[in-house]
Amino acid sequence: MILGAIEAGGTKFVCAIGNERGEVLERVSFPTTTPEETMKKVVDFFNGKEIISMGVGSFGPIDPNKHSPTYGYITTTPKPYWGNYNILGELKKHFKVPMEFDTDVNGAALGELKWGAAKGLSSALYITVGTGIGAGAVVEGEMINGLLHPEMGHIYVRRHPEDTYEGSCPYHGDCLEGLAAGPAIEARWGIKGDMLPVDHEAWDMEAYYLAQALVNYILILSPEKIIMGGGVMKQQQLFPKIRDYVQEILKSYIAKEELASKIDEYILYPELGDNAGICGALALALTALNN
Amino acid sequence: MILGAIEAGGTKFVCAIGNERGEVLERVSFPTTTPEETMKKVVDFFNGKEIISMGVGSFGPIDPNKHSPTYGYITTTPKPYWGNYNILGELKKHFKVPMEFDTDVNGAALGELKWGAAKGLSSALYITVGTGIGAGAVVEGEMINGLLHPEMGHIYVRRHPEDTYEGSCPYHGDCLEGLAAGPAIEARWGIKGDMLPVDHEAWDMEAYYLAQALVNYILILSPEKIIMGGGVMKQQQLFPKIRDYVQEILKSYIAKEELASKIDEYILYPELGDNAGICGALALALTALNN
Ligand SMILES: Nc1ncnc2c1ncn2[C@@H]1O[C@H](COP(=O)(O)OP(=O)(O)O)[C@@H](O)[C@H]1O
Ligand SMILES: Nc1ncnc2c1ncn2[C@@H]1O[C@H](COP(=O)(O)OP(=O)(O)O)[C@@H](O)[C@H]1O
Ligand SMILES: [Zn+2]
Ligand SMILES: [Zn+2]
Repeated sequence: MILGAIEAGGTKFVCAIGNERGEVLERVSFPTTTPEETMKKVVDFFNGKEIISMGVGSFGPIDPNKHSPTYGYITTTPKPYWGNYNILGELKKHFKVPMEFDTDVNGAALGELKWGAAKGLSSALYITVGTGIGAGAVVEGEMINGLLHPEMGHIYVRRHPEDTYEGSCPYHGDCLEGLAAGPAIEARWGIKGDMLPVDHEAWDMEAYYLAQALVNYILILSPEKIIMGGGVMKQQQLFPKIRDYVQEILKSYIAKEELASKIDEYILYPELGDNAGICGALALALTALNN
Repeated sequence: MILGAIEAGGTKFVCAIGNERGEVLERVSFPTTTPEETMKKVVDFFNGKEIISMGVGSFGPIDPNKHSPTYGYITTTPKPYWGNYNILGELKKHFKVPMEFDTDVNGAALGELKWGAAKGLSSALYITVGTGIGAGAVVEGEMINGLLHPEMGHIYVRRHPEDTYEGSCPYHGDCLEGLAAGPAIEARWGIKGDMLPVDHEAWDMEAYYLAQALVNYILILSPEKIIMGGGVMKQQQLFPKIRDYVQEILKSYIAKEELASKIDEYILYPELGDNAGICGALALALTALNN
């Protein structure tokens, strides 16, 4: 069973073929330029590969609503050339196979649920902390989408009392992404996150913000597992700090061992590691087959 | 088709029979005392009524996980006598019909989706602002449950700069419920909400807090409709204020007309009015039949 997977990122595209066990058999990646140029490379990669379905996990905002006339579009992105681009329509011109289209992070949540850190559970939340902050969630096997898709990175959290940085979100200033994504860390401390020492105070502040967001996600969505990926989460010292803050903020309100003695297994780095995105697209390809 | 419905509240129980069109045919209500006394009245009401299924929307926290050994229990409630009480088990002793058990607010969200303000949509969020604040959500016809069930009333929001009230949540102090539920209004202004003039500054502050919560729910869950019920929402002047603050806080980030020109139809009072709870339980009874 050969499945096609596309991780459509704002910086780079990854294309792969894989199987129903989440194994990537062949992959290629290239920078995201214009849709014409980029999509040509995508089509060239899959041509002749005999895929039986295709999953696309995309940067957004996208239209994931199957009943909408713009289903399958990348919509109001500020990224040049890609606004209102019908990515799924372009793929359908070339490949006559079932396709599933969702956000990259909803895909990653599904991938971790099928093959990674949340295997065997029925719900999971995946958050990436990188150039931006995005999160996706699967509940009872269904990706969370509705009016649009979640934009969990832009929630507001309470400011750290010692933080004077104004925030970098062009829409909201000091929303979560504006305070805690990679570029905010760099702007606040004047140095890129990967150059900051592991015992720098930046990480305590970062954990404080991310923990507040996780508490909101827990109270609103109640996921059975939270998986945190993206460049910033390579700082493994963040994990124990985040878990401590989550407990401190929730104050034992939710009487579940996952949030008490077992919190080390509740908030985790992706088991699929840097493959979380492309395996997510593979999981979407599997979903396409079942619909 | 005669369906049984129980709205199990911490203050009172409502029992009803109804049909698949959401019509309540007969109802009764009584105060919540001990489980023995209260459940006897419940059983007496339904005896001989020939119901073909039963829906229970309950106060919480509850265990809504069908795979759990304590499925159907009211769990860690501080309410005397009801902690770790197997309410569904008790009902099953007396009635051999399919049953569905969920939180009162998940039920209400389902009821509004089937017969009320969200009819025809595939997702909706229901929030009640009363003695406490609770919310439930349905996405693609599925109630949101996972590790536990949502406890959306306890998220943190940013404090209003002029608010000096410390908050009334016994767990968190100034979480949303601690700042914006009925008892917080009374404690802050020294007078019950229903006695405050409609142009009192209390309502602007209340709208500010509730709007922040809705923004978080929108960004995390992306519901197609938000329905706001409970005693406090009887203050209809809150609705335009809440809608304005939601737009102000989101800053057009989500390019959807539901959040722009059509926001008056997006954030609404329950169409089922004071029947939202019992119709929710009726909707759960219908779900029980389909499972
Ligand atoms: N090891 C690291 N430690 C801290 N920050 C990092 C690390 N690696 C990358 N970052 C930051 O994360 C951001 C890039 O995120 P990444 O997830 O790699 O890509 P993207 O979000 O663009 O897909 C940059 O702001 C970068 O400074
Ligand atoms: N018309 C009203 N205006 C403002 N507040 C009200 C109104 N009616 C009830 N409340 C407040 O709402 C709370 C009761 O909420 P309600 O939804 O009626 O019951 P419960 O939450 O206990 O089921 C009380 O704190 C009460 O002061
Ligand atoms: Zn933002
Ligand atoms: Zn609280």
